[in-house]
Amino acid sequence: MSVAGVGEFGLIDRVTARLSYGPKVLLGPGDDAAVVAAPDARVVASTDVLVEGRHFRRDWSGAYDIGRRAAAANLADVVAMGADPTALLVALCVPAGLSAGWVEELADGIGAEASGVGASVVGGDMSASPTLTIAVTALGDLAGRTPVSRAGARPGDLIALAGRTGYAAAGFTVLSRGFRTPRLLVEAYRRPEVPYPAGPLAARLGATAMIDVSDGLLADLGHVATASGVAIDVERDAFDVPPQMRDAAQALGVDPYAWLLTGGDDHALAAAFPPATVLPDGWGVIGRVTEGAGVTVDGAPFDGPAGWDHFR
Amino acid sequence: MSVAGVGEFGLIDRVTARLSYGPKVLLGPGDDAAVVAAPDARVVASTDVLVEGRHFRRDWSGAYDIGRRAAAANLADVVAMGADPTALLVALCVPAGLSAGWVEELADGIGAEASGVGASVVGGDMSASPTLTIAVTALGDLAGRTPVSRAGARPGDLIALAGRTGYAAAGFTVLSRGFRTPRLLVEAYRRPEVPYPAGPLAARLGATAMIDVSDGLLADLGHVATASGVAIDVERDAFDVPPQMRDAAQALGVDPYAWLLTGGDDHALAAAFPPATVLPDGWGVIGRVTEGAGVTVDGAPFDGPAGWDHFR
Repeated sequence: MSVAGVGEFGLIDRVTARLSYGPKVLLGPGDDAAVVAAPDARVVASTDVLVEGRHFRRDWSGAYDIGRRAAAANLADVVAMGADPTALLVALCVPAGLSAGWVEELADGIGAEASGVGASVVGGDMSASPTLTIAVTALGDLAGRTPVSRAGARPGDLIALAGRTGYAAAGFTVLSRGFRTPRLLVEAYRRPEVPYPAGPLAARLGATAMIDVSDGLLADLGHVATASGVAIDVERDAFDVPPQMRDAAQALGVDPYAWLLTGGDDHALAAAFPPATVLPDGWGVIGRVTEGAGVTVDGAPFDGPAGWDHFR
Repeated sequence: MSVAGVGEFGLIDRVTARLSYGPKVLLGPGDDAAVVAAPDARVVASTDVLVEGRHFRRDWSGAYDIGRRAAAANLADVVAMGADPTALLVALCVPAGLSAGWVEELADGIGAEASGVGASVVGGDMSASPTLTIAVTALGDLAGRTPVSRAGARPGDLIALAGRTGYAAAGFTVLSRGFRTPRLLVEAYRRPEVPYPAGPLAARLGATAMIDVSDGLLADLGHVATASGVAIDVERDAFDVPPQMRDAAQALGVDPYAWLLTGGDDHALAAAFPPATVLPDGWGVIGRVTEGAGVTVDGAPFDGPAGWDHFR
């Protein structure tokens, strides 16, 4: 049945019946607003919007995976501040002819990604729209930690990465050219594997700056460099090109380092740490902070494509 | 210049430069996430989405008023829980050809409505989209008060209203028929006057249930009746039909009580109070809670139109 057939309130009932609520949810969906525990007396909040045709395609990804990715994009922003995600709110705009089952699968994906990191979907809104649009807001609790902004990197700091980069971009390129394999890359595009625990862990270890890699590693390190008033140099040899990516790059005539260094959507975390920091498992050094401005690769500007601008 | 010409980051810079930040904003826009004070150790959160052609029309309302209304719809949800609004996050999807100036005016309207109630715009996201869409999330602080849900009304309670109903619906009807006056009604549609302080005040006075009137008074009281397991009777004589509304209703062949009792979008607040409550200025009794189920007007079902379903 279509969403128009089920109706707004019917669809909201169907979706909320599929969700589960953790102990931080003091009042869940169904009222004017939700009430979420914020034991730290501060709340971390971030919003991201996904638009069909621009951030996802229904012929490339199923509803469940689109839901997981919509949630992941926001949850990654919260852990990139060093916070523990607590709640999501979802504004969903759907064509009236879309099936209610598609929306239920989307909700399942959002709910699964949230509950995997201890967060719950606590509220939202739905409307018909010609353009399928998913706007998610994530909330988080700092548990006493200092929020890790983009602005604290200092010359001498290590630059380290948790999670992978370039896989989703490679999967996107593969799908754009009409292929459905290699599976490793296509699945990475469909469902990012965000290194959630690495964010709060970095905050506890004294990370001086941190960012969710969503515009591409060099572009996002550029945001850190600008906010911190420093330069960042990345070592190309710190990145492995996995065989599937190497083969796909060769077949498609692409430089795999363009994927690794400028591809977004894997939602890795990049952070600066004081030089004496012993990094835990999951974090690997990829560069250094120096005095100056801008981002370089092995001391020189990278001549690949720049990051993503959502209006161009 | 168009938003595509300015670019995503350029437009974000233009918008954030126009905003101001209150003392609750510990970290504002420009990082992965914002950090907002939540001194109560609980945070109230609500999301609403406005879609062009469905919730607003650019030929009926200017960008500034659309911004005020987008913010008002969310801030009203927060005060309807008895909380003080602290922050807004805004996900904005705009056609690439829209002028950057339109977006700036929208941001000014959102910022003005927020700052009028002590809240700040702390973050957001922007994307191009064929459909102009504004998703707003509002956060609030309960300041030690018990959240006032829809579920606590008890037989014998008074039903009271703060703010006005039917004005926005009348303005919408007037605009739909191609008129631009009476100004009172058209302006009420363009820019709701939400009785913000009445929400926290009602919570302090012991309101047993409260709701933001956005689907229409009878529909929203129906949500309270269902959640509370009670019946609600509304007195028709409690409502004044202002002369401009009476004249417009006569000219258009509409029952003005259909506007007053079933029109949304004024964002009045309706609440139940224990019967001995002395209501302060701004709140007026409009009915009673009884045992049973459903909502009646002077003891009988209202035979006007039902509330609004955003898929129909």
